[in-house]
Amino acid sequence: MPSDAAAPHPKFPPLVDRYLAVRAATEALAAPLSPEDQQAQSMPDASPTKWHLAHTTWFFEEFVLQEGEPGFAPHDPHLRFLFNSYYEAVGPRLARPSRGLITRPTLAEVMAWRRAVDARVVRCLAAGLPDGVLERLVLGLHHEQQHQELLLTDALHLLAQNPQAPVYADDDRFEGQRRAAASVPTRPAAAWRRFEGGLAQIGAAGSDFTFDNERPRHRVVLETFELATRLVTQGEFAAFVDAGGYREPRFWLAEGWDWVRREGITAPAYWRGDGSERHRFTLRGLLPLEPEAPLVHVSFFEADAFARFAGARLPTEQEWEHAARSAQVRTSPPAIGRAGAGGKPPPPSAVPPELTAFFAPPLPQRAAKKPDAAGAPAAAPPLLELFGEAWQWTASPYVGYPGYRPAAGAIGEYNGKFMVNQQVLRGSSRFTPEGHARLTYRNFFPATARWQRTGLRLARDG
Amino acid sequence: MPSDAAAPHPKFPPLVDRYLAVRAATEALAAPLSPEDQQAQSMPDASPTKWHLAHTTWFFEEFVLQEGEPGFAPHDPHLRFLFNSYYEAVGPRLARPSRGLITRPTLAEVMAWRRAVDARVVRCLAAGLPDGVLERLVLGLHHEQQHQELLLTDALHLLAQNPQAPVYADDDRFEGQRRAAASVPTRPAAAWRRFEGGLAQIGAAGSDFTFDNERPRHRVVLETFELATRLVTQGEFAAFVDAGGYREPRFWLAEGWDWVRREGITAPAYWRGDGSERHRFTLRGLLPLEPEAPLVHVSFFEADAFARFAGARLPTEQEWEHAARSAQVRTSPPAIGRAGAGGKPPPPSAVPPELTAFFAPPLPQRAAKKPDAAGAPAAAPPLLELFGEAWQWTASPYVGYPGYRPAAGAIGEYNGKFMVNQQVLRGSSRFTPEGHARLTYRNFFPATARWQRTGLRLARDG
Amino acid sequence: MPSDAAAPHPKFPPLVDRYLAVRAATEALAAPLSPEDQQAQSMPDASPTKWHLAHTTWFFEEFVLQEGEPGFAPHDPHLRFLFNSYYEAVGPRLARPSRGLITRPTLAEVMAWRRAVDARVVRCLAAGLPDGVLERLVLGLHHEQQHQELLLTDALHLLAQNPQAPVYADDDRFEGQRRAAASVPTRPAAAWRRFEGGLAQIGAAGSDFTFDNERPRHRVVLETFELATRLVTQGEFAAFVDAGGYREPRFWLAEGWDWVRREGITAPAYWRGDGSERHRFTLRGLLPLEPEAPLVHVSFFEADAFARFAGARLPTEQEWEHAARSAQVRTSPPAIGRAGAGGKPPPPSAVPPELTAFFAPPLPQRAAKKPDAAGAPAAAPPLLELFGEAWQWTASPYVGYPGYRPAAGAIGEYNGKFMVNQQVLRGSSRFTPEGHARLTYRNFFPATARWQRTGLRLARDG
Amino acid sequence: MPSDAAAPHPKFPPLVDRYLAVRAATEALAAPLSPEDQQAQSMPDASPTKWHLAHTTWFFEEFVLQEGEPGFAPHDPHLRFLFNSYYEAVGPRLARPSRGLITRPTLAEVMAWRRAVDARVVRCLAAGLPDGVLERLVLGLHHEQQHQELLLTDALHLLAQNPQAPVYADDDRFEGQRRAAASVPTRPAAAWRRFEGGLAQIGAAGSDFTFDNERPRHRVVLETFELATRLVTQGEFAAFVDAGGYREPRFWLAEGWDWVRREGITAPAYWRGDGSERHRFTLRGLLPLEPEAPLVHVSFFEADAFARFAGARLPTEQEWEHAARSAQVRTSPPAIGRAGAGGKPPPPSAVPPELTAFFAPPLPQRAAKKPDAAGAPAAAPPLLELFGEAWQWTASPYVGYPGYRPAAGAIGEYNGKFMVNQQVLRGSSRFTPEGHARLTYRNFFPATARWQRTGLRLARDG
Repeated sequence: MPSDAAAPHPKFPPLVDRYLAVRAATEALAAPLSPEDQQAQSMPDASPTKWHLAHTTWFFEEFVLQEGEPGFAPHDPHLRFLFNSYYEAVGPRLARPSRGLITRPTLAEVMAWRRAVDARVVRCLAAGLPDGVLERLVLGLHHEQQHQELLLTDALHLLAQNPQAPVYADDDRFEGQRRAAASVPTRPAAAWRRFEGGLAQIGAAGSDFTFDNERPRHRVVLETFELATRLVTQGEFAAFVDAGGYREPRFWLAEGWDWVRREGITAPAYWRGDGSERHRFTLRGLLPLEPEAPLVHVSFFEADAFARFAGARLPTEQEWEHAARSAQVRTSPPAIGRAGAGGKPPPPSAVPPELTAFFAPPLPQRAAKKPDAAGAPAAAPPLLELFGEAWQWTASPYVGYPGYRPAAGAIGEYNGKFMVNQQVLRGSSRFTPEGHARLTYRNFFPATARWQRTGLRLARDG
Repeated sequence: MPSDAAAPHPKFPPLVDRYLAVRAATEALAAPLSPEDQQAQSMPDASPTKWHLAHTTWFFEEFVLQEGEPGFAPHDPHLRFLFNSYYEAVGPRLARPSRGLITRPTLAEVMAWRRAVDARVVRCLAAGLPDGVLERLVLGLHHEQQHQELLLTDALHLLAQNPQAPVYADDDRFEGQRRAAASVPTRPAAAWRRFEGGLAQIGAAGSDFTFDNERPRHRVVLETFELATRLVTQGEFAAFVDAGGYREPRFWLAEGWDWVRREGITAPAYWRGDGSERHRFTLRGLLPLEPEAPLVHVSFFEADAFARFAGARLPTEQEWEHAARSAQVRTSPPAIGRAGAGGKPPPPSAVPPELTAFFAPPLPQRAAKKPDAAGAPAAAPPLLELFGEAWQWTASPYVGYPGYRPAAGAIGEYNGKFMVNQQVLRGSSRFTPEGHARLTYRNFFPATARWQRTGLRLARDG
Repeated sequence: MPSDAAAPHPKFPPLVDRYLAVRAATEALAAPLSPEDQQAQSMPDASPTKWHLAHTTWFFEEFVLQEGEPGFAPHDPHLRFLFNSYYEAVGPRLARPSRGLITRPTLAEVMAWRRAVDARVVRCLAAGLPDGVLERLVLGLHHEQQHQELLLTDALHLLAQNPQAPVYADDDRFEGQRRAAASVPTRPAAAWRRFEGGLAQIGAAGSDFTFDNERPRHRVVLETFELATRLVTQGEFAAFVDAGGYREPRFWLAEGWDWVRREGITAPAYWRGDGSERHRFTLRGLLPLEPEAPLVHVSFFEADAFARFAGARLPTEQEWEHAARSAQVRTSPPAIGRAGAGGKPPPPSAVPPELTAFFAPPLPQRAAKKPDAAGAPAAAPPLLELFGEAWQWTASPYVGYPGYRPAAGAIGEYNGKFMVNQQVLRGSSRFTPEGHARLTYRNFFPATARWQRTGLRLARDG
Repeated sequence: MPSDAAAPHPKFPPLVDRYLAVRAATEALAAPLSPEDQQAQSMPDASPTKWHLAHTTWFFEEFVLQEGEPGFAPHDPHLRFLFNSYYEAVGPRLARPSRGLITRPTLAEVMAWRRAVDARVVRCLAAGLPDGVLERLVLGLHHEQQHQELLLTDALHLLAQNPQAPVYADDDRFEGQRRAAASVPTRPAAAWRRFEGGLAQIGAAGSDFTFDNERPRHRVVLETFELATRLVTQGEFAAFVDAGGYREPRFWLAEGWDWVRREGITAPAYWRGDGSERHRFTLRGLLPLEPEAPLVHVSFFEADAFARFAGARLPTEQEWEHAARSAQVRTSPPAIGRAGAGGKPPPPSAVPPELTAFFAPPLPQRAAKKPDAAGAPAAAPPLLELFGEAWQWTASPYVGYPGYRPAAGAIGEYNGKFMVNQQVLRGSSRFTPEGHARLTYRNFFPATARWQRTGLRLARDG
């Protein structure tokens, strides 16, 4: 029950600000796209921008207003059906591949719905909401941040279908070396960093916001292993391509090899041309390959094949988390939810630079700022690009942690029901919104997915 | 070569007017649709409205301006690739199912292209064009009229995907009894009209515009046959449904029976509910079944099965044409092309009412005006609804007439290359633009197509 | 009712002989195949040999014994379900692609069923059968002959899947120049033979056996046309391949062009290698291309594309029939049914050589024997290879003749329900059993079918 | 190099006996099947019996004779291509779904090949083989045992396609209560057995034969858990079906729910009818459901959904192995390889009864004989049916153990390349050959596979 429905809520200001900031960020990402751009769905796995704008609004209406708003009535009952994504408990919904065919409501009508829901949520926050509903609201913000990244990757996939190679936005946040990093001379060479085996703690504990799949914290046995200090680059992967890597079955899992042949895959997604003519289609349009920059848009199968080609392997998600935790003073950045819901807002300076996604300074600079890197002995090279460049495929299939239990009700469908035939990715990418990354964050996609901003970091046995 | 490049062309005014009228008509049909509506493609066989607007423009740029405009340069070279439909000789083109993914150019950009091409075509017409190019321009007008009907049927298919059953336009031209016909009491009962066997002339001759597939005129032997005086109604087809017609293999061609079971077909396209709750989705939204109105949106397989159920058969296209010609004084209405290009413009009164498509008065009135019906003996009931309600499936597969030769060059791909695995439809529908119908017109679609406005008329051996 | 149940039937001896001869011929064709060979089904359109052996037996049990045998009981009720092909009226049946999975009954059990049914049919014939049942029996013999050809083409398709290129039988009846023709020096060059336009009679009349789709005889108007005097050869088609014919859309119908690209078609079925290394897989194993021999195993799309490449076209089925009738003294060979059922058996010498299928002498010799060829003026070159080499694709889609009515009951499903999306083929092939070919015979297959022994003869407007 | 090529090999007698026994067992399983039965392939995942007979022979020729036989020449070079299963390193191979189309070599020829290879292997064993080749030979025996189980499940799947429900063999080893168990009154009720959390050893160590995927032995942290003492029964699963379990999305993983709806799944594989009319198709033909018998032929999705329905979960493979090891004195049965290759042959009495698969005594008896069960306190109910009834789906995706490395060369493709999108199964089934089961054995199949003899055991958090 609301702890303070009458009096001004101490939690209110930061959560309202956060809410409005997250909502505005989604719309800012949609802004470069025309109503036509926002309507189209380029494949069943992707969704139209308009759908993202609507579905995130549906989430707040369904899971916050419906329970927390006195005298609740839906903005429009049709929308409930149209913009449910996959919550079976909420009722029937539109078949996923048909999302691009729902031309009405128009974009303008969806934006009006956003405005209306936002006003109602703000009023509810001002009036006070029960803790359970506040938790849903915080979940809704993280949910919307996930859709912000999807909005970008789905838009990239859509624009890539257009032979004109149109530009989403010519902004160095999305691709290429960032302007702020122009003075940094060269990127450090990759090295191995060793981690001794033993018992490690994996997963989240404490009261900061996490998704349910990051819990409970539990112990695992890790054997000694080594992790590459940076991500695999475009140039390194080009060498794999040029060496015939896509034509050599011994590098591939059997199912990956079938996929490569069936789909005629010969390069990462969005690569065009070959040899010195290689380009990549990006949100900035068609750009030349950047040999020094992290590889992105490969499937798990390609990441795994490259690792085998390189005489290495992919790390498990436990190795990744353990290494990342060891490499940092702070185990996780301040989260949106708890800070807003309970404690004081995080001071700006407390946000570690490596977690600030596409608003972050360039990589070498970021690495230099890492507290543990600064204090580490010379022999332990810092781990770079843990966050903010590319999601990193791991060798771990996506399963529940020991003792994992999904939340009760429809919200329990958020994560648990996808725990089969998916691989875990760790870290975050340039497209990940600021404040959304976490050490314990478990992203997951099928082994063939390439339209996300996915790359890899090598590992090997110690 | 231009016969009159310097002097004002005597043919100029009517053709310019016609050109601008046809172009404006397309845009008027698109007007009720938002940019989102105009972007979406609901199945591979359908195209987005924006694509229709662009492709018809491409046709004039490719086949008229390129050849007829001094110093021709394309408006935008990318568009040539994007909006070619199926002309292999013109070069590669976008895969058909991807038309809905081309969000750029935007609708506004496509409309600007239309404006630019229109201005250039008008200038060329003013300056004079060689006869061959003028013929292409006239073909382009008929081509655009074909796309006007497709624009409507494709929009209907798209809106039908939306569970909200949105309305395109609440206008009695598209569906339901027309207001002008409100005073006409009842529709006449169907009857058989007999046609004696013998030699008949089929196909077009003379200089009026026709598509190449309507020529050459040739003789055929017809056995005596009878034709129903009106189209099969929605109520008659509902009786077939209620009698289990979709579950009884003996009514169906083998391939149709496979199709019914594979696709789970149980009623005409856009029918919803059953028994007294039956509705149809239309351009005016969800409407109750009209038992007296012509059946539309059935496939050839359904038309053929119904005919067998009714103890009858479908007419051949030769029977249809011979009957229609016998039933009229005029064998064909004035066509756009030749009239404009050579002779004097057709007097308004010369347009027979039964050919005026959705601007036509209601059926009984039209029938009464038919010259031959008026003058026929009482025993010969008039043939109603030959034009203006529904395309009528015939028993005839689509083949070239004896001596048929496609035009030279890319334009030769217009008709000939589709002459396999298609059935001919005759007449015209409510969605067919005024002036586009002809006695010799041969429409064609695969036996499973239902999204066109297709119905049937029964026939039997004499 | 039986006209002569008690007394010895005058029709009996020849029909029993014919029955036993046709049944034995099927088994002779199966003899070179092992039980394993006879079990496998290489694609949904093909059937296992064992299935052919069983289904033809089912036909006699279902349509002859059931009606004509006093106290009829089925040999095994399961078999009725397992070996019905497509007769909906008879009841449910096994899905066609599953025929290869019915390993029981074994081949030995199927052969025992054949023996049992044969004995019962012979007893019934001895006892006398009603005319209606006798007609069914004759139909069953023609039906079994159709399956004899399918047995061979299905076996060829199956063996072609085996990388070892196994041999069915090394016999010059199936492929290659026949031994009897070894002394004939060269094959005549192709020429055009002209046929004047006018009214022609098409289809069968009289009491000789025909399928229902060959009737009724009717008049058609033919324009003047010319027909090639022989079939297109393997060498001529190789020139089309070498000229890039499979990569040039202008030769192809649109649907054929889609098929070529989707399926990756680059040569006729069973061709392997290219240039001077070209071989064909045949019932005699892998053989070098025979440039002078008739082309076989092309689809309608390929036949049509070659004709366009050659500046010609395919004949209509009416043109073919008219030309073939004009070229012969006899309009049709003695048929099995009527002759056996009513008149005297045909004298051996009355069988025209060009109709004797794979037992026929080689081509030049056959041509020389043609009565009309012998008597024709020098200016009219004889039409060769009308029968006995390859089924000839025509430009005619398969439809019912004017006034066509399928037979009543299940037997009415024999032909009529396939009258959509198929093309007619005329003539007969080396695999066609002796006595099965007719001037009015209408074979039909979809435009993509290539596993039949199908070729083409060119035509052009006169 | 061979340690004792000249002198009689001390290892020889037992390995030859083992070799001949395993080879004979395969042929005994094929014996009830006709050549037709042995030819057919009922789905791409299954293989013909003849193919199993040939492929296991290919394995010995490829991996034993080729390396170990002086002057090796293949029996027939064609066979290398035809009967390679998935070893890319060995060269190209037949597409898997085409295995049923290879009718030649015939079954008799395959059996002759078996005889010839057996003779050559026996001669090689007599002459002495290098240790590396002997290891391959032992691997080949385990490989052939795997194919023995597949032969049975593939034959079951094939016979299930036949509407006649044919019987493979009416033998209580395959289905139903075994005769030897007829006197045992009732099956014990299920109970939970608790296992305390802590560090556990998982995987194989030592020199006994195992597949590479069972190694290396490593430590894991297990939380306290409980395991059901017996498998889920057919009657328990029928209750799930009757409660609408297949229509309730909350029990299902999202991908499982899609699968259920797409495939129209409503019961375990081979169940027919419903309510009191429920039957199962088995190797003994159609049998009534046995409510007390273990459930078999469910997919991982069905097993997982049932567990959720039952308020429980599936065990991880580590929990399963730890529990099984705790429940027994012996950690693993004597393996074929090492015993034969080095030490003395295992005394018959040393084979634990619960590992003897379909030659084992019935369940209650087996349980009573377990050493640890006998000695356990009354409060710890024995774990029944760990082996010999049904493979048990676990919650664990199939991945390599820490430090796992596939063997070098083609043989390294045996296991490692399948480590994605598969779930581990533990235990063994009635169809598993004697001596093939192990505590550390990791079977694996995709989450949708149902044609294996797969069931489940429930688990829950402690």
